[in-house]
Amino acid sequence: MKNIVAIGGGTGTFTILNALKDGPVHLAAIISMADDGGSTGLLRDQYGVLPPGDVRRALVALSESSQTMRDLFNYRFHSGDLKGHSFGNIFISVLEKVTGSFSSAVEEASNILKIKVAVVPVTLDDIRLHARLNNGKMVHGETNIDIPKTRERSPIKEVWLEPKARLNPRARTILREADIVVIGPGDIYTSLIPNLLVTGMKEELKRSKAKKIYFCNLMTKKGETDHFDGNDFAREMEKYLGKDVLDYAVFNNRRPSPAVIKRYRAQGAEYIEPPKAKRNGATRYLFAPLIDSEPLLRHGPPKRLAKLLLSL
Amino acid sequence: MKNIVAIGGGTGTFTILNALKDGPVHLAAIISMADDGGSTGLLRDQYGVLPPGDVRRALVALSESSQTMRDLFNYRFHSGDLKGHSFGNIFISVLEKVTGSFSSAVEEASNILKIKVAVVPVTLDDIRLHARLNNGKMVHGETNIDIPKTRERSPIKEVWLEPKARLNPRARTILREADIVVIGPGDIYTSLIPNLLVTGMKEELKRSKAKKIYFCNLMTKKGETDHFDGNDFAREMEKYLGKDVLDYAVFNNRRPSPAVIKRYRAQGAEYIEPPKAKRNGATRYLFAPLIDSEPLLRHGPPKRLAKLLLSL
Repeated sequence: MKNIVAIGGGTGTFTILNALKDGPVHLAAIISMADDGGSTGLLRDQYGVLPPGDVRRALVALSESSQTMRDLFNYRFHSGDLKGHSFGNIFISVLEKVTGSFSSAVEEASNILKIKVAVVPVTLDDIRLHARLNNGKMVHGETNIDIPKTRERSPIKEVWLEPKARLNPRARTILREADIVVIGPGDIYTSLIPNLLVTGMKEELKRSKAKKIYFCNLMTKKGETDHFDGNDFAREMEKYLGKDVLDYAVFNNRRPSPAVIKRYRAQGAEYIEPPKAKRNGATRYLFAPLIDSEPLLRHGPPKRLAKLLLSL
Repeated sequence: MKNIVAIGGGTGTFTILNALKDGPVHLAAIISMADDGGSTGLLRDQYGVLPPGDVRRALVALSESSQTMRDLFNYRFHSGDLKGHSFGNIFISVLEKVTGSFSSAVEEASNILKIKVAVVPVTLDDIRLHARLNNGKMVHGETNIDIPKTRERSPIKEVWLEPKARLNPRARTILREADIVVIGPGDIYTSLIPNLLVTGMKEELKRSKAKKIYFCNLMTKKGETDHFDGNDFAREMEKYLGKDVLDYAVFNNRRPSPAVIKRYRAQGAEYIEPPKAKRNGATRYLFAPLIDSEPLLRHGPPKRLAKLLLSL
C-alpha cells in the first residue's frame, strides 16, 4: 500500500483524494490553516479558536457518512443570532473548546463523519497570511488576499505567515512515511503556499524520498494569478519550495469549449496554457487532458488522475 | 423483555431510565415539548424550530457515548454571537432544518450519541404551556411557570397547552406496546403534566393494559408546589390523568438529614411528607426509602428503583 499525502485545502485537493480513495493506498490530507474569512473569521476573533473552515471542507468532501451528516456540517445560518455562521465550523470550534485541542477536535469530527483519510492541520499555531503586492501595498488576511477589494489589483509579489508557524508533528510524521506527495491543484497563494510557508515543511519535502508532484490549476484566478501561464505557476511553486524539490509538475492540455471559456472570462478567469518545455531542472513536466466535465471545470476524470499518480 | 416507558423530561425521568438500562428491558422515554426558555426559546423564536432543550437533556443523560460527546452537547457559549446558546440545542435544531423533521433530527442525534433508549417527543406540534393562578392571574410560557418572576406567587390552579397538541404517532405506538409506564419523578406542572395535556395521551393511558406508576418527588418546588404533601401530588396527577388510571403511586419515606433540609429550605424547597393512606381508589400507594445520596437529593439507589419497578 502506497502512502499518498495531498497538500492543500481546497476543492482540488479533495478531487485528487476522492479519485484515489478506492485504490490500494493510504491517504492523508495536510490542510492549510490560514483561513480567516466569514464564519471562520468570526469564530477565530470571538472565541480564540483555530480556523475550522478549511478542515471542515476537507471533512465534508471526504466523508463516507450520510448525506444528512454532510448537509449538517455545511449548514449555514442566514438570520438570527447565528447569522453567517456555518454549523460545521461551530461544531469543530466547540470540539476544540471541549477537548482542549484542535487536533483532538479534528479527530473526533473525523470519527463522526466516518473519514478514512487522515485530515491533518499543517500547523496548530494561530497564524495569519499576509501579502505584498508589486506596487508595494500590503494585504492582510487570507480572505482579503483571496477576494480582491478593488476591481484591478497589482500582482502579488510575496506572501508570508505571521507569527511564524511550526509544522504540526503529525504532519511531519505523515510526510516522512509518504511515497507520493501531491501539491494542488488549488489557489496557490491562499491554499497551497500557506502550507509551504510553515517552518519545517520545505525542509521535510526537500529531504523526503517521496515523489513530489505539483498539479497546476485549469484556470487562472482573478486578482491572484491573472495572466499566468503554466510556467508562471511552476516558477512560483519553485520560489516557495526551492529548486529541484518537485519531481513532476502536471499540466492540463485540453482547452475548454469556447462557451465555457467565455463564461469563466466573465468572472476574470482564463485558460492556463501548458508550458512548451518538457522540464525545468530536475522537475519533469507531464501533460494530459485533465478536464472532467463542463461547464464547471474540475480535474478528472477520477480514473485518469488515479492512473497517472499511481504510475509515477 | 418488558417494555418500559418513562414519561417526563427532567432529571427524575433519566434517573429511572438509567437505573433500568442494564436490565432485561426495552426502554423508551416520552419527552415534554413545552420548553421555551433560554437557548431553546431563542432558537424557537428565531428559527421556527421545535424546542430541542428537553430532548437534548434526555439524549445526554442516556448517552453511552464518550464524555467528549456529552460535553459537546452540553457546551454553552458565554460570549460573542452565540452567547446563551447551547451547542446541543443548535445541533438538534440544525438537524431539524436539514432533515425537515424534528423526529428525524432526534433519531440522527440518538445515533450519534449512541442512545439505546428510544427518545420520543410527546408531540410534534408547536405549542406553549400556560397557567392560571388561584388569584386569577395568568402566566404564559413554560419558563415563566418554572421560574417565578415574583418572590411570592399565588398557587397554580390550572395549566394547559395552546394550540392543542396531537400525540406523536410514535409515542402512541410505544405506549401501546408498554408493559410498564412510569410517570415522574419530575416537576409536575412543567415536566410531567405537559405530556398528559397532549390530546390522546390520557385516552392511551386509560385504555393501556400496562402498569401505570407515578413517582412522587422528594422535595417541593418553590412557586410550583409550595406546601404540597404526597396527597397533594397524587391528587394533581389524578386531576390531569383521570380517576383510577394509575395503578401505583410511589412515595419516598426517608426524611433527609437536618442539614440537607436546611439547605433546601434556603431555596424554598421542603421535604414531601408521604400520605398516611395506603391507597386512593384503585391506586395503591407504595412507600420506600428512595433517597440515593446527600447533599444533592436524587431518587435511588438505582438497584432499589429497578427492583421496585420490575416487581410490580
